[in-house]
Amino acid sequence: MSEAAYLKLVELGREVQLVADTQALLSWDQEVLMPSKSLEYRGEQMAWFSGWIHEQNTKPEVGEWIEEAESQCSGDSDEVAKANLREWKHSFERETKLPRRLVEEFALAQVHAKSAWAEARAKSEFSIFAPHLTKLVSLCKEQAECWGYLETPYDGLLDKFERGASTVRLTETLGDLRTSLIPIVEEATSNEPFDRSCLEGQYPIEKQKAFNHEVAAAMGFDFDAGRIDTAVHPFCSGMAPHDTRLTTRYDESDFLSSLFGVLHEAGHGLYEQGLTVEHRGQPVGNAVSLGIHESQSRLWENHVGRSRAFWDRWLPVAAGYFPHLASVDVDTMYRAVNQASLSYIRVESDEVTYDLHVLLRFEIEKLIFSDQLKIDEIPEAWNSRFESYFGLTVEDDANGCLQDIHWSLGIFGYFPTYSLGNINAAHLASEARSNSVVKSDMDAGEYSSLLNWMRSKIHGRGSILMPDDLVIEATGRPANPTALVHHLRDRYLTKS
Amino acid sequence: MSEAAYLKLVELGREVQLVADTQALLSWDQEVLMPSKSLEYRGEQMAWFSGWIHEQNTKPEVGEWIEEAESQCSGDSDEVAKANLREWKHSFERETKLPRRLVEEFALAQVHAKSAWAEARAKSEFSIFAPHLTKLVSLCKEQAECWGYLETPYDGLLDKFERGASTVRLTETLGDLRTSLIPIVEEATSNEPFDRSCLEGQYPIEKQKAFNHEVAAAMGFDFDAGRIDTAVHPFCSGMAPHDTRLTTRYDESDFLSSLFGVLHEAGHGLYEQGLTVEHRGQPVGNAVSLGIHESQSRLWENHVGRSRAFWDRWLPVAAGYFPHLASVDVDTMYRAVNQASLSYIRVESDEVTYDLHVLLRFEIEKLIFSDQLKIDEIPEAWNSRFESYFGLTVEDDANGCLQDIHWSLGIFGYFPTYSLGNINAAHLASEARSNSVVKSDMDAGEYSSLLNWMRSKIHGRGSILMPDDLVIEATGRPANPTALVHHLRDRYLTKS
Repeated sequence: MSEAAYLKLVELGREVQLVADTQALLSWDQEVLMPSKSLEYRGEQMAWFSGWIHEQNTKPEVGEWIEEAESQCSGDSDEVAKANLREWKHSFERETKLPRRLVEEFALAQVHAKSAWAEARAKSEFSIFAPHLTKLVSLCKEQAECWGYLETPYDGLLDKFERGASTVRLTETLGDLRTSLIPIVEEATSNEPFDRSCLEGQYPIEKQKAFNHEVAAAMGFDFDAGRIDTAVHPFCSGMAPHDTRLTTRYDESDFLSSLFGVLHEAGHGLYEQGLTVEHRGQPVGNAVSLGIHESQSRLWENHVGRSRAFWDRWLPVAAGYFPHLASVDVDTMYRAVNQASLSYIRVESDEVTYDLHVLLRFEIEKLIFSDQLKIDEIPEAWNSRFESYFGLTVEDDANGCLQDIHWSLGIFGYFPTYSLGNINAAHLASEARSNSVVKSDMDAGEYSSLLNWMRSKIHGRGSILMPDDLVIEATGRPANPTALVHHLRDRYLTKS
Repeated sequence: MSEAAYLKLVELGREVQLVADTQALLSWDQEVLMPSKSLEYRGEQMAWFSGWIHEQNTKPEVGEWIEEAESQCSGDSDEVAKANLREWKHSFERETKLPRRLVEEFALAQVHAKSAWAEARAKSEFSIFAPHLTKLVSLCKEQAECWGYLETPYDGLLDKFERGASTVRLTETLGDLRTSLIPIVEEATSNEPFDRSCLEGQYPIEKQKAFNHEVAAAMGFDFDAGRIDTAVHPFCSGMAPHDTRLTTRYDESDFLSSLFGVLHEAGHGLYEQGLTVEHRGQPVGNAVSLGIHESQSRLWENHVGRSRAFWDRWLPVAAGYFPHLASVDVDTMYRAVNQASLSYIRVESDEVTYDLHVLLRFEIEKLIFSDQLKIDEIPEAWNSRFESYFGLTVEDDANGCLQDIHWSLGIFGYFPTYSLGNINAAHLASEARSNSVVKSDMDAGEYSSLLNWMRSKIHGRGSILMPDDLVIEATGRPANPTALVHHLRDRYLTKS
């Protein structure tokens, strides 16, 4: 479309994106580099940007432009214009319901909560974090009330992360997944624990960095348009059209920790690098949802990185960096990266038990937002549930409800998208591997045809379709847990 | 003052500063981290911020507020209010003379010129940089015409960096300095060259970083409110009230290169960290001028870092990091860091010849802005002058007119402030050492009383006074080259 109102929306979007991308640098910098005393000022900066962006997006003329552009949009308009209008309208309706005061208060509260959470986790003291969590939950409830929702305030929050999702449907999907997982978990975790002593040794950080760089480059991550840095909590920020930054963390006694961090975040990063640059600042130029984003990270982490073909190729390379690995064979390495066990930390958990961690937090979040759980009751609720799901007693909150950063960012309704990601990853991987070239390349440790498949079917499609429709377009059918369950059975049960 | 108009100016200043400090992060990031393909987009971001800031600072109501606040300002108003009004008025008058288009065009041109310069220097091909330089010079001439000037457009540019400076006066001061320097240079560079073989060896970068960190911390640099990173061109960015970032560069065969980078930049950093936080966003909360800023960096680099007392304390520490230095004595080290020689690169030059490099670029800049030198004639003009000042033939422009980054940032009129900085540094150091505690501490390799002296007399005074008045307040008399000349004679000629 080239009508005036539409072009005004494109132009405004471009300007707002330039500024939002700068705010993304502020946020990235806070995680990676910022000196500690700068926290308060950074909070003011973040709040200002959130407020300014909100003000631009909710100017009355934006509503008029949307109406005018809609009236000019016909059945013949291209899919890009239709999708942009769909998303502009949706965001405008949601954003105009929030007062600027609430937007700024939320941004400011996030900055302080993030720092309180880090301290609380380090000391394993929930009480340090509790007042911040109370504040953020209350602000999120206020947001949800502003937006309105189908059945529960939690529905209103979900929409931020997964367009079209509902609490009822997610509860059903994750419940189904749980039912299928339980027998796999039971069998897979009952095996004799793997003896990791053959992997013991020193893994100098500089060498880990070099190895990770080599792997990420082979996956197709463009280092002229991205970087890898170090942060406590690994993440990926697609902060500009040609600037995608990953982080990971290093353990000198275990190269797998930083490697799998990079495989996961580079999966996100490839998605960001595959979005259409010309559409930057338009809704269609954005990733469509977290459930799709996470499908890309889990695809590379699990379906590529934990495969035997991966280690056929990369174990000899790793042994070049870490000579004591020369005595380890591919079979052993494959078993080392595919051990199921009941453990405390989600991000370090295996593929089989991972979704139980997600489910647990999803349930806690639902209780919080239906006023059935008070903030100071969270640790107890977490721990008792954890015991019943995992058979483990949580001794300290750092290994329990404080383990994840998300709540400190005011992010509620995000967690279930991790399981959607797992489901989507298996579903997409299975479809991609039905293409014989993709399959034979992957089996040979080559990734370009897999990446091209994702580029054309997922990355390059941006937000043109809603998440469910995107999956249907790419695979011919809706995603469901079947492929994931098959994959886990194949990988974890065939040997027993 | 608490009158409404004044408070509105304070509030606007605070908001604009928040945004400008974010732009400073963008700029820092471009030098230190940004992936190469992001250049174009970064240019758009920088231009947007420059334009937005300009727009805020030149809103018609700002002029009204200034007038109103001035009318309420009486002889009894405090010095802070008076200074803020003096600077607000001056900036408003200058900024309103520039169209937003010119401000944005300048910011965009800078980003591209910086990258072209880096390539041109790497390849030593002036022609790569020439079109960008032509553009920037033309934009600067346009700026100067907008602002107006006393005698030459160059006067208009100087004001950006050194309030109250004029081409005529600088020509005189630097001319006087040159006259005094020439015999010192002749004598100091005629000595037998120092044999550096005793310093030869490996200096692992991680160890250099640790040593530099220890030195900077001992100087008083607060690492909870700052960092040191790596960049091709060392610089310091005071990008937020508690966020001052230095950069340096590393040479594995020479630890002095990164160390003196840190000493210099930490001098700037201490000034930034010593500004009054409550005044952030007001003119008085800013450094007053580059001639004063550079006095701080040169003070720590030369008057502290090249002193015998410094090496009495730090040589044993350095030998802990770099064991082969254990066989070097303090006398040798002192001589190693105080060698005068005629060489090509300003930033690597010694104290004695440094100002000749400055003078040369100052002369070239004056010729450019009085239309006596065309852009493509610069290399030849540089080289022939260089030969007459230094007796050396410039073989490639990377070691000649392309060596410094400043022109690529559109910075003209900045260079003479380096010599002002040297003059001020010696003048302030001499006055500070007339305090017996400062002197005995410095002679013992302790820095807190020197830092406190600068904190109270320079840093904490911000822009309350104009540069010349600040020096008079601090020392009882105007700065002149005498102290610098004495210092150089003492250090370089006493042994002969």
